[in-house]
Amino acid sequence: MLADPAARTEKLIVNSERLWASIMETAQFGGTLKGGVKRLTLSEEDKQARDWLVAAANSSGYATGIDDLGNIYIERKGTEPGRLPVAIGSHLDTQPTGGKFDGILGVLAGLEVLRTLDDAGIQTKAPLCLIDWTNEEGARFAPGELGSEVYAGEVERSFALSRMDADGISVADALEAIGYRGKERCGERRFSAMLELHIEQGPVLEQEKVAIGVVTAAKGQIWFNGVIGGRESHAGTTPMPLRKDALSAFAEFALAIERIANAEAPAGVGTIGVAVIGPGSRNTVPGSVRFSLEFRHPDKKRLEAMRVRALDAAALISRTRGCDVLLEPIWAKDPVQFSPQVADVIRESAIALGLSNRLMVSGAGHDACAVALKVPTAMIFVPCKDGISHNEAESATPEDCAAGANVLLHSALALAGRA
Amino acid sequence: MLADPAARTEKLIVNSERLWASIMETAQFGGTLKGGVKRLTLSEEDKQARDWLVAAANSSGYATGIDDLGNIYIERKGTEPGRLPVAIGSHLDTQPTGGKFDGILGVLAGLEVLRTLDDAGIQTKAPLCLIDWTNEEGARFAPGELGSEVYAGEVERSFALSRMDADGISVADALEAIGYRGKERCGERRFSAMLELHIEQGPVLEQEKVAIGVVTAAKGQIWFNGVIGGRESHAGTTPMPLRKDALSAFAEFALAIERIANAEAPAGVGTIGVAVIGPGSRNTVPGSVRFSLEFRHPDKKRLEAMRVRALDAAALISRTRGCDVLLEPIWAKDPVQFSPQVADVIRESAIALGLSNRLMVSGAGHDACAVALKVPTAMIFVPCKDGISHNEAESATPEDCAAGANVLLHSALALAGRA
Repeated sequence: MLADPAARTEKLIVNSERLWASIMETAQFGGTLKGGVKRLTLSEEDKQARDWLVAAANSSGYATGIDDLGNIYIERKGTEPGRLPVAIGSHLDTQPTGGKFDGILGVLAGLEVLRTLDDAGIQTKAPLCLIDWTNEEGARFAPGELGSEVYAGEVERSFALSRMDADGISVADALEAIGYRGKERCGERRFSAMLELHIEQGPVLEQEKVAIGVVTAAKGQIWFNGVIGGRESHAGTTPMPLRKDALSAFAEFALAIERIANAEAPAGVGTIGVAVIGPGSRNTVPGSVRFSLEFRHPDKKRLEAMRVRALDAAALISRTRGCDVLLEPIWAKDPVQFSPQVADVIRESAIALGLSNRLMVSGAGHDACAVALKVPTAMIFVPCKDGISHNEAESATPEDCAAGANVLLHSALALAGRA
Repeated sequence: MLADPAARTEKLIVNSERLWASIMETAQFGGTLKGGVKRLTLSEEDKQARDWLVAAANSSGYATGIDDLGNIYIERKGTEPGRLPVAIGSHLDTQPTGGKFDGILGVLAGLEVLRTLDDAGIQTKAPLCLIDWTNEEGARFAPGELGSEVYAGEVERSFALSRMDADGISVADALEAIGYRGKERCGERRFSAMLELHIEQGPVLEQEKVAIGVVTAAKGQIWFNGVIGGRESHAGTTPMPLRKDALSAFAEFALAIERIANAEAPAGVGTIGVAVIGPGSRNTVPGSVRFSLEFRHPDKKRLEAMRVRALDAAALISRTRGCDVLLEPIWAKDPVQFSPQVADVIRESAIALGLSNRLMVSGAGHDACAVALKVPTAMIFVPCKDGISHNEAESATPEDCAAGANVLLHSALALAGRA
């Protein structure tokens, strides 16, 4: 993980047209009429994208490997055989109505980094290893980040391989079906570092007109299911003082959650995304509300403080309104601290390239979050239009993609060491 | 509409066991396993209940008439042929998961009033006319109060007869099918007054332990469809200050509506019964909320003030949150003032019977609200368990039903004049 300042100061840049062309070319594998991509993991379309990647690797003479979770490893040799490879990884799978960039940019920019080094005749001391992680999205098989989590030891191999899609097909069967169930055992490869380039999937870089996000951490999350029990009654005949309106209690709770999150802004967020009102009749005072709640924060203590404040708000509203507000925690994930050393390398690369940059925290989950538990890892974010992702309208400019790829190139070069 | 004090001071009371038995007997027509009633208007079950009523009238020798909306008129003769009849009306149809009392009590207590007068050998100067109004509930054919509204001239006959149910059957066809399309023209009969006894469908009498509600008015209503447009975004990657969370804006609006209604309590009410969150994903900041809103108030000016305050709240939230809050008025009904003279007669009857009573305003719609536009009308409310109606759990005690029937009896006697 030695940084080589010389590598970052020279004018080496990726071929941005080739990078863009590769994004547009692979977008055809599952391309939708609206310009998005539907490329569910281990589907026929995913096979096409994987085959394209492997063919590109083969034509450049890189060694390829596939593990038993279908993760693809593409290695460009280093000059010092004893050094662990520097990994560049992301994913080629998409949401059912996904875009052309989420995950894909990270893989194709990694390929472009290897090709740029080839073109320039530059060798690195440590090998570089490009990785396509299986099932980051979790759209066909839940949960997501399956390939990277098995790699990191966060999820059992047998659990991962037995996950079923809606048609009852397991991950193991789907891997066999497309010919990507490798012999190599997932988790055995070792790396000195991993870099992941990704669109931000949020609005911050675009709003602040900053080119590069140096991602130092990923937020922890707590998810709840909530239910509020009031008293269903006739909207015309029940005077206000005799009501136990579950919707009014919910409204008070929703604003309390907003205040709790605002007090932790901008790092902390709190969201109620689902709310179902019962019985849902125009002239009936609502008797129940079922809802979701999630908090995210990069600081575990602050996340815990948000949880406690939410429980306090629920208790207060239960007491004052006579409507029970119940919160059931259903899932939680600790915050992930990325490697400060790797983040420093990214930041220095951005500065050397004259690119505006800021430190930031990822609010979404990524393969890097899993890999970071085992390998020193950090992420590079680039802006995406209106912060939109998981959507066919997902968009990023060629310039922003190239800027991210250049930071990826110089960071990888710095970490692997120029031979 | 002369009150006859003598009629109210004697100890004449209804046969409460016979009244209760008639409620239980007719509850079999459409009776449900949970003890409720499913008797949609003009269904086979409704025909059974109608046939039962007509047979009861025939066996007592009352004249029956059926109009072209299927409203049934059962007349007990008076001694002074020139006097207009005093009507006692309500309905025998129910909601799909309705109860044994809503509407039914008013018809069967009316029958019990006629029978009690027969038993006591009492004649009245004006005739008494018991009415079963067609389709008060509006559950099979919308809108409700169809028979009484055509009677009052509020709704066109042709419009009413052409209403379709979910199977494409019209009111006219349904009337023919059960043999209740009469030759008499709806709206031609004239009455000097109408009385309607009904369960309160609200919690006030029960909570205050009051036996009789003397209903002097019915609330006006304004109904809206509302929509809030925010910006859908990623729950993990969108910092709080960059959000336009439609659900948070909705929560603020819902609490504003509650405050507006509380300021008009207890007469005014405001309810959001429906709210649908879009896209409704756990980890997406809501981009839209579609909702219903209704206000009810017995005072038209205050109802208008509530409307204006709701628009002000919507405008303020739109401005401060950058989420458009739009309200579209879809239906309105002016408040109905019942006849003070008829209400006085009801109140004096309750007092004479030693029954606790209070003036009140109906929050729900009733046949009486339509008839009141044409005939001096007022209503009698009795308590129902937990204020619940439109529900199989709907319940009222034999004592409360009898108390209401006794007030109905003495009010009818006072209005018709004892011969």
